[in-house]
Amino acid sequence: MIRLTLEQAHQLAQDILRSNGFSEPHVQAVSATVLAGERDGCASHGLYRVLGCVRSLKAGKVVADAQPEVFDQAPAIVRVDAHGGFSQLAFQAGLPVLLGKAREAGIAAMAINHCVHFSALWVEIEALTDAGLVALAFTPSHAWVAPAGGSKPVFGTNPIAFGWPRAGHNPFIFDFATSVIARGDIELHRRAGKPLPEGWGIDAQGQPSTDAAAVLQGAMHTFGGHKGSALAAMVELIAGPLIGDLTSAESKAYDDGGDSSPYHGELIIALDPQRFLGAAADEHLARAETLFESIQGQGARLPSQRRYEARKRSAEEGVQIPQALYDDLNALIVR
Amino acid sequence: MIRLTLEQAHQLAQDILRSNGFSEPHVQAVSATVLAGERDGCASHGLYRVLGCVRSLKAGKVVADAQPEVFDQAPAIVRVDAHGGFSQLAFQAGLPVLLGKAREAGIAAMAINHCVHFSALWVEIEALTDAGLVALAFTPSHAWVAPAGGSKPVFGTNPIAFGWPRAGHNPFIFDFATSVIARGDIELHRRAGKPLPEGWGIDAQGQPSTDAAAVLQGAMHTFGGHKGSALAAMVELIAGPLIGDLTSAESKAYDDGGDSSPYHGELIIALDPQRFLGAAADEHLARAETLFESIQGQGARLPSQRRYEARKRSAEEGVQIPQALYDDLNALIVR
Repeated sequence: MIRLTLEQAHQLAQDILRSNGFSEPHVQAVSATVLAGERDGCASHGLYRVLGCVRSLKAGKVVADAQPEVFDQAPAIVRVDAHGGFSQLAFQAGLPVLLGKAREAGIAAMAINHCVHFSALWVEIEALTDAGLVALAFTPSHAWVAPAGGSKPVFGTNPIAFGWPRAGHNPFIFDFATSVIARGDIELHRRAGKPLPEGWGIDAQGQPSTDAAAVLQGAMHTFGGHKGSALAAMVELIAGPLIGDLTSAESKAYDDGGDSSPYHGELIIALDPQRFLGAAADEHLARAETLFESIQGQGARLPSQRRYEARKRSAEEGVQIPQALYDDLNALIVR
Repeated sequence: MIRLTLEQAHQLAQDILRSNGFSEPHVQAVSATVLAGERDGCASHGLYRVLGCVRSLKAGKVVADAQPEVFDQAPAIVRVDAHGGFSQLAFQAGLPVLLGKAREAGIAAMAINHCVHFSALWVEIEALTDAGLVALAFTPSHAWVAPAGGSKPVFGTNPIAFGWPRAGHNPFIFDFATSVIARGDIELHRRAGKPLPEGWGIDAQGQPSTDAAAVLQGAMHTFGGHKGSALAAMVELIAGPLIGDLTSAESKAYDDGGDSSPYHGELIIALDPQRFLGAAADEHLARAETLFESIQGQGARLPSQRRYEARKRSAEEGVQIPQALYDDLNALIVR
């Protein structure tokens, strides 16, 4: 393993993205996101992702200098056309408008269209909780997941993320795939030659399988049976057709057998506790703290607790990445 | 079993509620909801619930003639104070304002406060999909469910409901508890002296148990492990403190060992596809139909399909209820 300071990790990501031709705003937006993942101990959304960013660029699947365009769609809707660039810059472009609309209307939505999406949603959720807002985010992916009772892939891993601001504490944030497991975990089993736990997926004939390669060719299951399947369908609908963007099946068809990140949309909803509660906001937000205490007081963990612990550690000790990844990343710097 | 026409079932509910002293607007709103449940084959939310309505009234836990008060809280928020009455009338009172705000702003929220809540959420979701809107609804209940990794009840059964309007079809609607199973199913096992399946709950000492009575004293699990637990926490937060109303723990404390329906709030979010998509709405809503076809085309069911089949049957054949329930209901009519 190689140890890097956060500054070194950030610099490495920037050097790769910049030297491969991404415009400076994309270099800054994408490197900040992968740094946040690495810092929070989410290796699968950390520096590793820079490999995929460059691969998408070389495959012609992402626009390196796309300039997001912001539309004031309705009093409580802002729409951002990413014009084929990575999602991060589009999110940043729309964020001030979303904040303004949520604070004015009480609830507001941001629809990001035509973006290439590879990041976890909690980074964006945290931008909203930092501003004192409650937030939800949804995005489809590629069609890899079968509906409950079915055997063919229709849904993406379709994450749902939620955040709640907490005065004096890290926000309450969760961000999970509606598939039973992340796609990357199945890939890791395949590389390691390890069988999958039962219940993760089915093969191309629709039969339950513990063979990772067979499930990658077949379909994954949703988490939680028909309930997770219903949620996965909801994500398809509200972060697909509702915002005029692709479903996971359409995104996979667009990729045309490639290995690129999904190209589609994202829906973010922000709610302002100050507008819901007025002068009573502090009193009621304090009652939410009682809820968190009743969870932690019995020894259960809040979601994101591990991430915040890793964040604290990384601030003091930096991050560690495998030597092989470090070498692969360095080899991508165009000198 | 006793067979009733829909008109007879509706009349029976009205006669009971009216003769026990509910005001006419509450008689109409509550009887319509229990009729919808009975008609759609949801016996647990059908006429059976009228028993609980009268029990709540006799226990002094619901205001029989409460007049909901509607507040224009913010450009995209309507708040309704139910003043201690059942939720249905409050929903009806706020509905026109919610529709207007969603159509104007693109997304809007309705917060119902201080209501007694016993109904499924799909009835209210359907009022919104009938108006062409996409809808979400959330409500806590009583603290009966332990967080993942914990052993003490904190969450309610905390349902999440979602609806998507479909031209020429019944809407896509799901409505499920974030607990692994409905509270009533555990009660049914207890009455039948049947052991619970493994994984439904724990006893008061926090140990896994298949004894229904022990789990009723202990805690139920959420569905889907830590993901369901995260969703249950979200429902507590956004349909509790965010709208200035009680959490499931506070609602249970308020009930003070009684057996009444939860007294708290409900959050409904409505999104207008016309505002998100403008002139392109029809084109994109048609792509949602492709998604539904890809689910049903492989033999999987859409949520609510069973309900719609029951609805069709009930329109032709009426409904059937157990003789004992029919007798219990008739005995409640004050003559």
